[in-house]
Order: sequence, then C-alpha cells, then structure tokens
Amino acid sequence: MNKWVRVNTCEGTVHVERCSDQELRWGGRNLIAKLLLREVPPTCDPIGRYNKLILSEGLLGDTILATAGRLSIGGKSPLTGGAKESSVGGEAGRKMARLGIKAIIFEDAPADLTPRVLFISKKECRLLEMPELARLAVSETFSRLQERFGDEAGLMCIGPAGEMRLSAAAVAVQGEDGAQVRLAGRGGLGAVLGAKGIKAIVFDDQEAKPAEVYDAKKMREVSRAFSRILLEDPKTENRHKFGTPAVLSLCNELGILPTRNFSSGRFERADDISGETIANLIETRGGEARRGLPCIRGCVIRCANVFADARGRKSVASIQYENIALLGANLNIGEIDEVAELNHLCNEAGIDAIEAGAAIGVAMEAGVLAFGDAEGAKDLLRQVSQGTPLGRIIGSGVTITGKVFGARRVPAVKGQAIPAYDPRALKGIGVTYVTSPMGADHTAGNALETAGAVDPLGTQGQVEVSRRLQLRAAVLDSLGLCLFVRPAFVKDPSLFGRMLHARYGWDLTFEDVQRIGLDVLETEREFNSRAGVSEDFFDVPEFMREEPLPPRNSVYDIPMKEMQGIWNVKPPKGVF
Amino acid sequence: MNKWVRVNTCEGTVHVERCSDQELRWGGRNLIAKLLLREVPPTCDPIGRYNKLILSEGLLGDTILATAGRLSIGGKSPLTGGAKESSVGGEAGRKMARLGIKAIIFEDAPADLTPRVLFISKKECRLLEMPELARLAVSETFSRLQERFGDEAGLMCIGPAGEMRLSAAAVAVQGEDGAQVRLAGRGGLGAVLGAKGIKAIVFDDQEAKPAEVYDAKKMREVSRAFSRILLEDPKTENRHKFGTPAVLSLCNELGILPTRNFSSGRFERADDISGETIANLIETRGGEARRGLPCIRGCVIRCANVFADARGRKSVASIQYENIALLGANLNIGEIDEVAELNHLCNEAGIDAIEAGAAIGVAMEAGVLAFGDAEGAKDLLRQVSQGTPLGRIIGSGVTITGKVFGARRVPAVKGQAIPAYDPRALKGIGVTYVTSPMGADHTAGNALETAGAVDPLGTQGQVEVSRRLQLRAAVLDSLGLCLFVRPAFVKDPSLFGRMLHARYGWDLTFEDVQRIGLDVLETEREFNSRAGVSEDFFDVPEFMREEPLPPRNSVYDIPMKEMQGIWNVKPPKGVF
Repeated sequence: MNKWVRVNTCEGTVHVERCSDQELRWGGRNLIAKLLLREVPPTCDPIGRYNKLILSEGLLGDTILATAGRLSIGGKSPLTGGAKESSVGGEAGRKMARLGIKAIIFEDAPADLTPRVLFISKKECRLLEMPELARLAVSETFSRLQERFGDEAGLMCIGPAGEMRLSAAAVAVQGEDGAQVRLAGRGGLGAVLGAKGIKAIVFDDQEAKPAEVYDAKKMREVSRAFSRILLEDPKTENRHKFGTPAVLSLCNELGILPTRNFSSGRFERADDISGETIANLIETRGGEARRGLPCIRGCVIRCANVFADARGRKSVASIQYENIALLGANLNIGEIDEVAELNHLCNEAGIDAIEAGAAIGVAMEAGVLAFGDAEGAKDLLRQVSQGTPLGRIIGSGVTITGKVFGARRVPAVKGQAIPAYDPRALKGIGVTYVTSPMGADHTAGNALETAGAVDPLGTQGQVEVSRRLQLRAAVLDSLGLCLFVRPAFVKDPSLFGRMLHARYGWDLTFEDVQRIGLDVLETEREFNSRAGVSEDFFDVPEFMREEPLPPRNSVYDIPMKEMQGIWNVKPPKGVF
Repeated sequence: MNKWVRVNTCEGTVHVERCSDQELRWGGRNLIAKLLLREVPPTCDPIGRYNKLILSEGLLGDTILATAGRLSIGGKSPLTGGAKESSVGGEAGRKMARLGIKAIIFEDAPADLTPRVLFISKKECRLLEMPELARLAVSETFSRLQERFGDEAGLMCIGPAGEMRLSAAAVAVQGEDGAQVRLAGRGGLGAVLGAKGIKAIVFDDQEAKPAEVYDAKKMREVSRAFSRILLEDPKTENRHKFGTPAVLSLCNELGILPTRNFSSGRFERADDISGETIANLIETRGGEARRGLPCIRGCVIRCANVFADARGRKSVASIQYENIALLGANLNIGEIDEVAELNHLCNEAGIDAIEAGAAIGVAMEAGVLAFGDAEGAKDLLRQVSQGTPLGRIIGSGVTITGKVFGARRVPAVKGQAIPAYDPRALKGIGVTYVTSPMGADHTAGNALETAGAVDPLGTQGQVEVSRRLQLRAAVLDSLGLCLFVRPAFVKDPSLFGRMLHARYGWDLTFEDVQRIGLDVLETEREFNSRAGVSEDFFDVPEFMREEPLPPRNSVYDIPMKEMQGIWNVKPPKGVF
C-alpha cells in the first residue's frame, strides 16, 4: 500500500505515484489531515477547484484484522468549512487496499460535470464518461455499475444530492453483500466529489494479491488475540444482536434522544423504534430481513442488518441508531417502517440522514410541515433527489435550512447537525461537538460509553473525557479500524504497537501511537485555524444553554473557557 | 442628543438613559462599533437574543448642516457574521435627532413575534402591538402608520423579508416627501429587527425643539461654507441632474458594470438604463415623475428621484445606480421599466436590491430561470414576500442562494453580495471588499472616484487608496453626513473640526477627526476578529482571480498578503 492515485478532474488525467517514506507512515484520517494542510488552501471554496477530495486507507487497511479496510474520505467540508474526515465501511475500501492503493486524490474541477467514473483494477486506472448515470439514485447507480463491472467490483458513488453539490451530500459505499449501503455521511463530502464531476469509483481487485506484511505469523497471532477480545466483550454481543440501534433505549433512558427538534431527550414511542423492536421484527418478518451482518468481510462484530417491511422485502440496509433518532424521534415519528423508508430515501438521494433529519426537524418547527408527518417528510426527501427549491434547502443541511426559515433553534455546531446525543444531558459529547476539528460529529469522540463512569449531567471531568475519546477516535480512524473495536484496545493497549509491527516492522510504543492521534488533531486544528473555523468561534447552539431538556431538565453549562483548555489536557499514560 | 433608548423586546420594556460623557462622543457608525464590542458576544446568533439592533444618529445629526440626519443602523450581520453599519437617508433619523435621541438599542428577543411598533414622541416612548401589520409590504405598512400617526411622523419599518428573518432583509425609511423609500440595505439588518419582533418605529417630533448647539452663529457660518462648496462642485450638479445613476455610463465604460452574473463588465444595453435615459424619461413622462429631490430635508445635493411609468405613475422612488446595475445588467435586463418594477418589488419585500439582484443572477446561471427573464425575476421577488421556499432562498442573499444551487461563481465577499463595481477592473474597491469590516460594501470605501488618478486596472497604490477611502467613510458615517459631501472635505479639511466645535465646543484637529475613523475601523475589526470573520479568512471569489472580465480582460490580482498589510498603512497628513 505505497501507491497514490492523483486524478486531475479538470484535465481528465490519472497519475499513479509512489509515496515517500514519510508519506508511507500516514494513513486514513492522518493522511487526509496532512494532505489538506500541505495542499489545500484553507480558505478555498469547498466546491471550487482548489479543494481536494481524498480517499485514504488506514495504516492497517490491507491486513486480516477484524474491521480493517474501513475507508476514510476527506476534504474541506462544505458544512463546517474545516478539515473533514468521514470513515465508512463497505467493500470498496478493502478492495482499494488490496490493490495496494493508499490514497486517491481528486484535484481541480471540470467545467463540464457530466458524470464520470474512476475505474481502478490491477492493470488500469482510468476515467470513464457515463452520462447515463446522471442524477440516478444510489441503488440504481450501483445496479448499473454492477451490470457493467460485475458483482465482485467494489463500488462507491454519490447520489443526486452530491451531483447537485448540496452541502449535506454523502458518499455511498456498497456493503459486503451487495444489499447494504454504507454512507460516509458527515461533512458534505459528496458535494465535493460532485463538484469534481465524479459520480462513482469502481475497484476491481480480482487479480490483486493480498499485501505482503512484515511478519505474517505475528499478524495472525495479533489478529486472533484481537478478535478474541472483541468476541468476549458483551458490547460486541449486543451490537451483533441489535446493531447500533441497541443504544436507543439507553439514550432514551438517559434523556439524550433528540425528540421533536431537540425539545425533549425522551420519546414517548421510543420502544416502537428501539433495537429490540427492530431485531424482533427482523426475526418475525423473515424474507430479506437479516441481522448480525458484517459491513466488511471478516468483521467479527457484525452490527449491520437488512430491515424489511411486513412482507419481508428489504426497506433499508443497514438501519442505524443515529438515523432512527433523527428521522424518528426528532420528527415525532414512531413508526419504524416509516423511519426505515425515510432512511432509504436519504440513502437514495445520497445525503446524510443525520443532517437531513435535523433539517426536517427545523422545517417542522418552522411550520413547513407538522411534527409526525411521515408522508410530508418523505415528500421532502424525494424533493431532495428532484432538486426542487425546498428539496435543495433540506439537502443543504440544517444550518442553511435554519437560515432560510429564520429559525432560532438550530441544532448544529460549526455548521453541522448535532447527531443523536443531546449534549445537555451527555455533556462530554458537547465538548467534542464544540472542540473537535470535525464539528458536531459523534464519531469524533462519543462520550456515551463513559456515561456509567462519569455523571453525564455533571460538568466535572467532561473535558478530559472528550480529550481522551477524541484522541482514540483519531488513532482508529488513521488505522482504518472501526470505532467499535475500542474494547480490545482498552483491555490491551499493546495491540496497537503489535499490529503495526506485524504490518510494517515499526517499533512503536503506546505513546508513539498516541502521538499519531495528537498529530492528527493538531494538523486538523492548524488547518481549521487558517480556515477561520477554530474552536474559539463556536459553542453549542444558544438554546441549549438556556432551554432545559426534559426529562432531566438540564442545560449545557460547560464554560467556553474550560472547553478551550482541552488542548492543554495531557493524554493519560498507557491507556486511552 | 444625549439620550439613549433601550428597548428590551423580550420583556416589552422601554428605558430612556442619559449617556455618559464618554458615550456622548460616540455617534453613528462609531457608536455602533463601540456598543457591539462592549455589549454583544461576537460569536452570538445574529437573529438570536444576544445580538442587538442599534439605531444611532451621527454626531452632527441634529444640526442644520446639509445631509445631516442620516441614520446609522447596526448590529451583528446575518450575512457577514461581523459588525455591520448601514447608513440611510430619509426623515426618521432627522426626527430622532430632533427628539434628542442619540441611539435606540433593541435588546433580547421575544418568543412571540407579533408585530410591534416603537413609538417615540417628546412625551412618550412605548411599544405598541399592531398585529394588523403582519407581513405587510413596506408601502402598505407606511400607509397604515401614516393613517394612525399622521403625515408628519418619521417612519421606518421592515417588510415581510425582515419579519421572516431572511438574511438579505433591509430596514426601510420613508423619505422626505412620503413618496420615497430609502433602504438601509446592506448586511441583513432587517432580519435582526424582525427577530426582535419590531415591525416599525415611529418618531413624532412635533413638540420637539431644535437642539441647542454650542455656537449657533459659527454653525450657520460653517453650514453656509459647506453648502457653498458642495453647490460649486460639478459632481453635485451631476448628481442633482441624474441622481446616482449618473455613474452607470462611466462604470460601463470602465468595464466594471456587473453583467450576467458578473461575466462581463460591459452591458450592451447600458444606454437604455443609464442616468441620462432615466433623467430624460422623468422629464418626458411627467406625472408623478420627479428628479433632483432631497432624501433628507435641507440637502443641497438632492440626488433622489421618483421614477414613473409611461403613464406618469410612480413605479419606484428613488431608483439608484447599484440597484439598476444588479437588477438590470446583472440579470441581462435592459428595459428600465422592468428594472424599476424589480426595484420596487425589492422595496416592498424589504430586501437589499443588491443582494437580491446578485442572488437572482446566480439563480439564472444555475438555470432556475433564463438571463433576461424579467417576468421570472419579478415572480421570484414576489415569492420573497410570500415566503415560498424559492423566495426564501433568494431573500437569504447570494451566498445561501449559491450554496443551495451548488454554484461556483458566487459574487460575494464575507457572505455579502459584491455591489455594482466589479473588482477585476476597479481593483481599489476589491481591497475594500476584502479588508473592510463591512465585507463587500461599496459604501465602505468606493474607489470609483479615484479611477481618474489611479489606474483602476493596475495593482499599484490600490491598498493605499482603499485605506484612505475606508477611513473617510468611517468618519462620515460617524458624523451622520452623506458620503456625497466628500468634495467639501477634500477641498477644506478644516470643516470637520469647525463643525464639531460649533456643535459641541470640542477642539479637534484634523488628525483628531481622522482618529475617529481609525477608532471605528479598529473597533469593528476587533469585534470581527473575535467573531471569526477577520480579513485573514476572506478573498474575492475564486473565479475573479481566474476568469478575465471582458472587455478589459483583467483578473483580480492584488495579493492577499498585500491587502492584509492595509492596516499598517499610515493615514495621510492633512487630507483624506
């Protein structure tokens, strides 16, 4: 994995480069941060020619480790205006790694935005015009690509939202089984790819061989140890059974489940959309319904699912907690089939369901449609794909929706929608929303796991919690592993060094690995600071500091000064 | 003029305060900058409860000087996110000054936005509920207010756009004759007033006496000298005859007239919308058509007009250069009657015609309607008032319109539309757009007047030009005088000190007056820097650095570094 592919989308040229020794040590989120700072003017137009859209495999992406092969997608975000990395599962990343490609960098922008596809196999690397894909939904795009490139190809694409360069547009990756669609949702990176005129990327790894690792025996050993810890962890079992929706009941109990545009943290009909209900329906409905699926081949956690309607026909795959929260409780919609349909419509348009759900919530509060109006919400999402003015507003995300409707209760930090954890009753994650270079992003340091150890309603220790979680997320996103492997590293922090040694022969202490995370955060912060979106200028939305959140009736009250001190917090020794 | 009125719009209370000796020395733009920095959290939500909407009279607002009485309106801008001051003519400011009120500060925000009116007379100062004004157009609002408060009342209000808190919303002030509508257009301050639930402000100065000045005799002398210089200046004559549209032919000749979304600097049908054509039509059509009108009683420049249709019925008053450029050439509309109607629709909705014209230009390029489609443009502006999704997009200004339509050619700096002077062929004004705390605002330092002395296409000396003009604009906006009085101060810089001495007894050198301007700019910059919108993060739009502008075929090429050095440029001695 020492090759880079540079695609000049204006000239239509593709160049394969060998990366330098220094660059070889970058991967995933780390590589994206480094390239952004080195090559992208921080104040550039996110959908202009100076931004770059970067795909990058994590350092362990081409190994046999469970969850390895997640793909980092990055660029300057149309939502936050800062550095963005969005990690996604599915098969494309693994195939890209198998092809020995560490990164693909899309540069410049063409005048003509006729859809093009980047096709990469062992033998070639080229851009194809496929005008027939214009404005096609994600599922239809994947079908057409499969017809042309075969079932074994690794596929990723944007939907109509990305082609329209809407700020909430995501990048979709096909899952392991062909049924699942995984979205690199946060940050609007689909719009950046759309602005480069790239509709899809296809990886054909048929003739590619697995990467040669430094010490294959050790790799097998560490891989076994890693999987064993994961399989022994009760959280894994829970995720396997119920998927990410497993946490919905907990979030409802904690009072952090966004309900009716973040006006409550508890939803009366939470039971109807919970992980248990979903698992139960999957079992009873049968047909195409499935659970406990991997999103990447070889994953031992297998939290993905296929949700099906009453007749057993797939309605969406996978259905996940954040999407259920934002498209369900947040819209006062308690029918899981409606939620699934809304989620599917987001996937088809190729937009982040979190951003879309938050935007529709604001539109509901503004009186555009009523809370609970599932048909109206579906109509809005169809309008996103159609590109009507209202659809484009929603597709531009919650901040622009709020602006256009003159809303004062807009759940966003740094231009990005707050995900499914209200920071008023889980204060540690509020610190992450405000201080993370990623903005309001639950994957950047989610304090939910600490809710048992640190009082989620208290202000004590939250900054330290966020610091630690942000650091760990930055490391995992740079290795190309799923955030759900955390338990293994908590139990045995030496795994990091052993994995990297087996793969590259590097001798890294745990502190060296921590330094990778520090380096990521510092590099992203430097980019953001030059872009004018440093953490000095953002707080949680004003209403969250004033309006108590039922049922805990707490407000967000961690002082800005304290949050801004987060970068002076020293990482703990020996553990994340 | 030593009284301040503080209106707590949440509690519905009105308090009259006496200002301190230090505060007495603040006026207009200066006062707004000081209050923003002292009282408004720089990162607050522009339409939230922590922003303040400030009206302030300039230091010379209550004098007999020509043009005195212009009103500064300010707050944190929904468009730029920074400090904003917009100066406006009309009668309200003069009456406010006559009532001895230096400033009105609207604070906090009510939950219920039922329209309220602030009524101020010599005897009382109170908030009235007038729900019948909800969503009324500006002209209808003025009619209703006139019915209730009489013909002599000084009136200002917002239109439906302000009530909807759309980011391009303006504040309208009735002109001297009741026919004219003057808009404090730039920066979206109408949305800030709308967010406070204030629909209108009424000044009844019937029992108020003129302010006692320090030396009435000297004031009469300096006033006469001032008016004489103005009347002798050929620019005054030109403005009197042709109004601000006088410069359209010059701008077309220079190649800086925004045409078809800033894709050309020259418009083939410029003659049809020029100042000469307008003056001629006003003469030949007769009826309600008039020219050479003052916008404030006592003005000797009198650049205002009433434009009438072919049957002599008023279509818009006043019609001005920037609006003609943005709603005419920029939309490829060469029929002056259509342009007048578009301008009227902007006034009725209560939105900045510059922002609206730029937004429609972007929508035209995005294919929403065709360039030159006057009926379509009118329909869009009607939709602004109606609050349809598309209307709200346009009413949110050019930056949001660009975002929603995924546009890459968006003529804006710091979130605000570039006015009617393309910086590619008038580079000095580009420096102002980028470095002024006001963003892309022609009133903050317009280099057009230097086009004869400094090559507008060259890069040499442009930073110094902008520095000088920004400083002078800041002083004039703090005195409450019109920018068009510049010639008098260029000819006799001692006038400033003499005026302030006659009014207050202060002994100020010319350098002291310059320091007022410096203080304004420094205070605004400090606010902006804390708000995250310092000049470090903004440049002209990328396309303006790359796409040569016909017919001069120049690009904007003043380096960022050079522009950022503007604050190190020392103001010249003795002259502006």
